Amino acid sequence: MLKVAVLGAGRIGQIHAANVAASAQAELVVVADPVEATASSTAQKLNCEFSVDPYAVIGRSDVDAVVIGTPTDTHVPLTLVALKAGKAVLCEKPLDLDQDKANAAIVEIEKSGRPFMLAFNRRFDPSASEIKRAIEAGEIGDVRQVIITSRDPSPPPADYIRRSGGIFKDMLIHDFDMARWLLGEEPVEVFAMGNCLVDRDIAQLNDYDTTMVIMRTASGKQCHINTCRHASYGHDQRIEVFGSKGMLQNGHVRPHTVHRFNDSSTDAQAPLLNFFLERYKQAYELELDAFIEAVETGSKMPVGADDGRKALALAEAALKSLEKRAGVLVD
Amino acid sequence: MLKVAVLGAGRIGQIHAANVAASAQAELVVVADPVEATASSTAQKLNCEFSVDPYAVIGRSDVDAVVIGTPTDTHVPLTLVALKAGKAVLCEKPLDLDQDKANAAIVEIEKSGRPFMLAFNRRFDPSASEIKRAIEAGEIGDVRQVIITSRDPSPPPADYIRRSGGIFKDMLIHDFDMARWLLGEEPVEVFAMGNCLVDRDIAQLNDYDTTMVIMRTASGKQCHINTCRHASYGHDQRIEVFGSKGMLQNGHVRPHTVHRFNDSSTDAQAPLLNFFLERYKQAYELELDAFIEAVETGSKMPVGADDGRKALALAEAALKSLEKRAGVLVD
Amino acid sequence: MLKVAVLGAGRIGQIHAANVAASAQAELVVVADPVEATASSTAQKLNCEFSVDPYAVIGRSDVDAVVIGTPTDTHVPLTLVALKAGKAVLCEKPLDLDQDKANAAIVEIEKSGRPFMLAFNRRFDPSASEIKRAIEAGEIGDVRQVIITSRDPSPPPADYIRRSGGIFKDMLIHDFDMARWLLGEEPVEVFAMGNCLVDRDIAQLNDYDTTMVIMRTASGKQCHINTCRHASYGHDQRIEVFGSKGMLQNGHVRPHTVHRFNDSSTDAQAPLLNFFLERYKQAYELELDAFIEAVETGSKMPVGADDGRKALALAEAALKSLEKRAGVLVD
Amino acid sequence: MLKVAVLGAGRIGQIHAANVAASAQAELVVVADPVEATASSTAQKLNCEFSVDPYAVIGRSDVDAVVIGTPTDTHVPLTLVALKAGKAVLCEKPLDLDQDKANAAIVEIEKSGRPFMLAFNRRFDPSASEIKRAIEAGEIGDVRQVIITSRDPSPPPADYIRRSGGIFKDMLIHDFDMARWLLGEEPVEVFAMGNCLVDRDIAQLNDYDTTMVIMRTASGKQCHINTCRHASYGHDQRIEVFGSKGMLQNGHVRPHTVHRFNDSSTDAQAPLLNFFLERYKQAYELELDAFIEAVETGSKMPVGADDGRKALALAEAALKSLEKRAGVLVD
Repeated sequence: MLKVAVLGAGRIGQIHAANVAASAQAELVVVADPVEATASSTAQKLNCEFSVDPYAVIGRSDVDAVVIGTPTDTHVPLTLVALKAGKAVLCEKPLDLDQDKANAAIVEIEKSGRPFMLAFNRRFDPSASEIKRAIEAGEIGDVRQVIITSRDPSPPPADYIRRSGGIFKDMLIHDFDMARWLLGEEPVEVFAMGNCLVDRDIAQLNDYDTTMVIMRTASGKQCHINTCRHASYGHDQRIEVFGSKGMLQNGHVRPHTVHRFNDSSTDAQAPLLNFFLERYKQAYELELDAFIEAVETGSKMPVGADDGRKALALAEAALKSLEKRAGVLVD
Repeated sequence: MLKVAVLGAGRIGQIHAANVAASAQAELVVVADPVEATASSTAQKLNCEFSVDPYAVIGRSDVDAVVIGTPTDTHVPLTLVALKAGKAVLCEKPLDLDQDKANAAIVEIEKSGRPFMLAFNRRFDPSASEIKRAIEAGEIGDVRQVIITSRDPSPPPADYIRRSGGIFKDMLIHDFDMARWLLGEEPVEVFAMGNCLVDRDIAQLNDYDTTMVIMRTASGKQCHINTCRHASYGHDQRIEVFGSKGMLQNGHVRPHTVHRFNDSSTDAQAPLLNFFLERYKQAYELELDAFIEAVETGSKMPVGADDGRKALALAEAALKSLEKRAGVLVD
Repeated sequence: MLKVAVLGAGRIGQIHAANVAASAQAELVVVADPVEATASSTAQKLNCEFSVDPYAVIGRSDVDAVVIGTPTDTHVPLTLVALKAGKAVLCEKPLDLDQDKANAAIVEIEKSGRPFMLAFNRRFDPSASEIKRAIEAGEIGDVRQVIITSRDPSPPPADYIRRSGGIFKDMLIHDFDMARWLLGEEPVEVFAMGNCLVDRDIAQLNDYDTTMVIMRTASGKQCHINTCRHASYGHDQRIEVFGSKGMLQNGHVRPHTVHRFNDSSTDAQAPLLNFFLERYKQAYELELDAFIEAVETGSKMPVGADDGRKALALAEAALKSLEKRAGVLVD
Repeated sequence: MLKVAVLGAGRIGQIHAANVAASAQAELVVVADPVEATASSTAQKLNCEFSVDPYAVIGRSDVDAVVIGTPTDTHVPLTLVALKAGKAVLCEKPLDLDQDKANAAIVEIEKSGRPFMLAFNRRFDPSASEIKRAIEAGEIGDVRQVIITSRDPSPPPADYIRRSGGIFKDMLIHDFDMARWLLGEEPVEVFAMGNCLVDRDIAQLNDYDTTMVIMRTASGKQCHINTCRHASYGHDQRIEVFGSKGMLQNGHVRPHTVHRFNDSSTDAQAPLLNFFLERYKQAYELELDAFIEAVETGSKMPVGADDGRKALALAEAALKSLEKRAGVLVD
């Protein structure tokens, strides 16, 4: 029974805390959040202790592992302190918005030798992991093209955008990770386009709300990503992998499976699940299971700090490509 | 090149005439219809001769085969004369609404030794024939249940209903044939229910517009048929065959494949093709091909007169079941 | 916070106990099962007390409600004792296999005036409840036909069959409840067919493994149910409701949404979820929520004892129909 | 009744000739092909005259319109002679592989003032035209992204590749046209990637078999095209248009609609129709109808010479982008 502290009791912290509480392999010891009301109400609901000081919680001897769901700028310091204290760490992405700081942290993380996992939750979606499994089993032969569609139901507030690092680091970071994972090879060149078609305020912030990217690996595999901050029909999350022997695609996820037939349309289904908390509910649970299992068995973490670094490098390359209106080689 | 006369230039006769004209294996020699304007306009469009006398046409030496698409009560006399004249015959179903007359005709037809095919067109639908082929290839093991859904877009006029022989002989006759064909065994007992839920005028005519039937074969295979004279979303034609090793179903047929996503629904498709002329367009073409091929090669007709007799016997059993509110053994 | 005892810690009891433990509206106080090892291991896992005496548990003053998941023959006595003790009761179906005993119990239950809910879990499946909601909202106009397909992945052991009351009371009881609920009217006449196509041992026990039923209501609405104790492709649970203005159907539920394309097939998906515990996981959770809410608010229970009586009456009518090979009017 | 000559009796010429012959609005007068056997056998099958001299045929006074399905390098001379002779022309794409020659021809074509249509057949696919219609009706609001997937079942022989002008001018030319048409705005910048993943011989010919393109319009609309010369599961032809109010997609086209369920997969369908002649059968028919209607009514041709020029300009831009590994502005 792994004894776990959850740092951060915001939207994502609450997801992690509830999953730890419900897990048969873990015990939720304490939830920490500087906002006392948030920390205490979460603790009460989940029947655990609470604290307003994450660093104090990290120091507790009855805590084996910490799950970090705090604001991005605290990810690196909390991670490094926790690893130094001998705890296992599951940290929300990104490690840091700044590539240099992230890289420096990764060196420290790897030096620590302690179990560290970066929370690229989408890899644990049952359909994503089945696609990965099928590729590795050779079902579709050699991968030729990966196509990822990623559209949010509605744009975040301007304030979020301002602190987000921009659409490539905030939103496409997941898609870049998915691309690397499914291609099975590192992309070496990136072409990116970005436009503001949803919300002109986003342009004011020098950001984009609608993007298209193409990438290639050294052996010539290709990847396309398209994203938008708004889709009227829900959170659209599609993966397609095309190979020499076949193709794999995931399907949409909806609140129920009802099909409607009437005089204006047939087989109409419900709008897609609205956003990532609903869409990736099962992925968050399975991500936690995978983290716990890797800690308990001492096996390699399914997502490491280096995966964060490489996804961030693709985001940086995409930004440079936009500036130069040219293909950019990935560092 | 089979030289063909088409008798009847109404809705169904025109379909047959156009298919003969377009066939590379047949030549449309003449179209006959007692209504001269109908016969002549069809002939002009298809570039062939016309006649108002079907019997004269049957007698022509430059005619090898006749396709009979005239009113039901002329099917038997035209068929018998044509067979006696040595012609091959493709006759629209039913042979006759009266079971005794139909049976007597079948004896004559079989005595003639000439090629005769009854036009159960649905067997030639590409999905229906693929399902049959897959069953015979053993793909789903032993058939256990056949489920047929058959709904028309809107009820025919009262005048048609009056002459139709009733829903079981007019509409379910196709489903009874499909059931026999897919079960691969004769149904031996029939339970039927009929109600008027669409149009109260149909009840005045002692007919039904909404029915459910269950049947079993001697070995215990089961079949369900449900029908309705009205469906708001188009002509609903479904087949399901469930066996010990799997299940086969056909899908819907629509005018195009567009899927729509918006804030009220996703993956919405167009209403189904409206009625049998559109839905079974390809089936009518393939039916003619099968007839021509059987004539040319002298092989067994894919649908014989006896198939008409047996489908009619199921319709009669269903009617008796409704009267007696009990299972009725098929003669 | 409703304080709940779960009676029975077998397969279904464990589902209920886990759902109570995970509920934010309820507290799992104690689990009772005459097999001590079963009771204690469940209690340990879910962090609650245990007992080997369900009657003692019912008597506890710190228990507000009991969930009964014990063997069928104990449903009535446990229910009546619990209601007399002033507890709210959620009882697994069926109340009793014997119609007279069930009816006598229902009289007592209704006299008690205490909250009682029968666990027809399928009504709480998100797609089933959406279909019901859409019907009531008038989306498809007047209901004309309900078609229910219900196939299990594999037959239970002979020993289970022997104690089950037969396929109509054990398996179709759910479908009869679904039929009543979706028709919105009581079926008044039942035609049934039953055969043994899966397992000849089931025939030895005077039971069936493959059935078809048709029913009608007083106003002429029709319903078809088909079932089989075996389906190679998983637990097939389909509902179709056809009305004057449209049709509603649920879709299949699978472990993931991956679609596969290769040189032999396209859009192939995974086999269906294997059986009811997986298929109706969410339904069991929502059923408990509905029970708790009705207890807490004092509102009418969504499924009452009388619903059990009426579903059982349809099963009895189906059995009589099989014997008489005729339509049987429902008592 | 438009009197039509078809020039070229190869694969595509035969399609056009058969469609003219079957049309109720046109009469197939003559088929011309320098290979006499080809011309005569086609003529015999379709019951028309034949010639080995296309220029002689153009000169006939009983010919109103010519359909040009000859080798690419004859498209321009035949077109110009036919227009000068006062005939209406439907010409297979591309007008010419060389951008300068094509542009010079377009000037001549436009000067002629005669009806000229370029055969971008895919626009006439019922799903493509329904998507276009829905966009123009405002169903999905403002278009933001167009995504086109275009995969052939297998690569053409090296000899074809050599004369094809390369994958961008031969294969993507259709996708560039589709992109322009669906975006409703001209793409102004093109990024392209090309690799050889299917057949190394294609690399020897300085061509590619697998490509990805992204483009943007002046207002910021984006388009992605991905193509491959080989797909194991058939001819994959997908269109997606994503807008501010929704999304439109076409579905796959298969030889039948059968869905298979067994212990290894569910809802599996047949491989896609194998190649463009089958996949776009209906599009070729509707293309001819549209041409005839525009000639007869004197209305604007649905696809003009300028559409060919603009699609070719995108192909040229893509080739330059590959060379420069940068975005290329379209001339």
